[in-house]
Amino acid sequence: MTQHHRDPATRPAVVLLTAGGVAPPAHLDELRGLAEVRQCTADTLAEALPGAEVLLVWDIFSDALASAWHAADALRWIHVAAAGVDALLFDELRDSDVLVTNARGVFDGPIAEYVLACVLAHDKQVHRTEALQRAGEWHHRETTRVAGRRALVVGTGGIGRATARLLRAVGMNVRGAGRRPSDDDEDFGVVLDSARLADHLGDVDHLVMVAPLTEATRGMLGEVELAALPDGAHVINVGRGQLVDQEALTSEIAAGRLSAHLDVLVVEPLPDGDPLWTLDGAHISPHMSGDVEGWRDTLSRQFLDHLQTWLRGAEPGPAVDKGRGYVSG
Amino acid sequence: MTQHHRDPATRPAVVLLTAGGVAPPAHLDELRGLAEVRQCTADTLAEALPGAEVLLVWDIFSDALASAWHAADALRWIHVAAAGVDALLFDELRDSDVLVTNARGVFDGPIAEYVLACVLAHDKQVHRTEALQRAGEWHHRETTRVAGRRALVVGTGGIGRATARLLRAVGMNVRGAGRRPSDDDEDFGVVLDSARLADHLGDVDHLVMVAPLTEATRGMLGEVELAALPDGAHVINVGRGQLVDQEALTSEIAAGRLSAHLDVLVVEPLPDGDPLWTLDGAHISPHMSGDVEGWRDTLSRQFLDHLQTWLRGAEPGPAVDKGRGYVSG
Repeated sequence: MTQHHRDPATRPAVVLLTAGGVAPPAHLDELRGLAEVRQCTADTLAEALPGAEVLLVWDIFSDALASAWHAADALRWIHVAAAGVDALLFDELRDSDVLVTNARGVFDGPIAEYVLACVLAHDKQVHRTEALQRAGEWHHRETTRVAGRRALVVGTGGIGRATARLLRAVGMNVRGAGRRPSDDDEDFGVVLDSARLADHLGDVDHLVMVAPLTEATRGMLGEVELAALPDGAHVINVGRGQLVDQEALTSEIAAGRLSAHLDVLVVEPLPDGDPLWTLDGAHISPHMSGDVEGWRDTLSRQFLDHLQTWLRGAEPGPAVDKGRGYVSG
Repeated sequence: MTQHHRDPATRPAVVLLTAGGVAPPAHLDELRGLAEVRQCTADTLAEALPGAEVLLVWDIFSDALASAWHAADALRWIHVAAAGVDALLFDELRDSDVLVTNARGVFDGPIAEYVLACVLAHDKQVHRTEALQRAGEWHHRETTRVAGRRALVVGTGGIGRATARLLRAVGMNVRGAGRRPSDDDEDFGVVLDSARLADHLGDVDHLVMVAPLTEATRGMLGEVELAALPDGAHVINVGRGQLVDQEALTSEIAAGRLSAHLDVLVVEPLPDGDPLWTLDGAHISPHMSGDVEGWRDTLSRQFLDHLQTWLRGAEPGPAVDKGRGYVSG
């Protein structure tokens, strides 16, 4: 583990960036026992930063640091209580030697389960069955065997790997797509080149988007890629809305050619009047795939564990590769 | 394998009991190549039976054989194209030496997947999310981690075992309940005594009913057992409606204490006006949990394979234990 130098006799100042409507971290008393806690919101971040060694980004969608960066005169470590750090990053931060960590691991199992729920909802026609019931109709149908179905998981980080393992555990035929192709990946077996995604979509039943949002992945599931999916394919997005050309996907769903479960959207909440609210084949959820009971407690606990590592003079990790925009395994 | 005696030079007569509205078996030409096929319905069964050696019950809910039994003067083997044989059995058949076989194995994997879909729909709040979407509401919620949840699978036949294996594969804590308790069952680990079901329900999150319907299991999930379930427990019935005191379950659902996914009901189709059509916590489906694309083909194939065994002078199997009402492992 990388060491860093700090005077163990000093209490660091930790800026806690939160927002109205966001529930505070658990274990705040414990945190206050370890550090001087400066709670702030986007508006007051610049006032809170001077002299602070650590920033805890609890308001995970905040991009406030970029404009308050001038005040970060002692900042050495930023922890983001989320898997994705796309909202945080900006060039000066990338170029600095400030350590960035994220909530690596916390969401792996929960999101994998959510993806499996979406797969089964699709193949077992859960939504259609519920709609028929509420319409008072008894209508027997045939559903689809999940074992043997072909899934492609785009994104080979911790969440993608947990998803692959779970989908394989129920007998699905799973491959991955990522930056580094492989023929013998321990979780995916085969990892395809995500830069050539359109070449690999012709035989996909379930396409799972779980890549981090970076300049390389923005819009990676575009019109061409969507057109390459076979009729009846099912898209699951638990990554970021901007991975997908949402307008093109909406057209494919409206045409009845594709269907989707979208836990993330380009604009959240999804604006009133967006056709995704009402299209039969579109199933949206409010960015909750990883948020199982106790998740805030788990996130707080993870930060406290990291802080104790920091106070011992070691670097918590793994670090986010700020150039790439994610933890690079 | 048990041998039986027949003249291999003769073509047996096979009575195919079907009904209006039921799609015929696949591979009928192949069947006609092996046997004289007499297709009939409940009304004409007594005319078709004389001299027939084999009966294929393709109309799986039919109880017509009991009243046509007098005409079954040469019958030696009955195959039911379903897992449950409760509709077929009656005392004279039980007392006879006519072999009964069922669609053992065909539904194991499909029904296990359906049960998992119900578990995930419940824990990930799939129905609530869909309802909120269709109401135009963006409402973030916390869902439940499935790994570690406690399932009790009542019924230790092939379907129950496949279900246990699949639920364990996603990290659930699974036990079984059956006639023969065990501490080291290969699929369940622990099998509890289903005759004392109420004693074992206090810590169950998901209760899966997949027992055959017999005099011993009829109403086994009654008022007392339902009351023993903890608040918030979820009942999944993929066995037979009559396993459950449906009225008592309806009351628990109406009170908001329990919820359920019911693929089978006491009367099918569920009568108009039944509160299960509309209660928030009641999710009904039209007896389709095992019916995946190609299921009729699989069932036809299974019968043809069995018939070829029969024509070779061997007994297809395993046989249904007519006294117990299911294949007894």
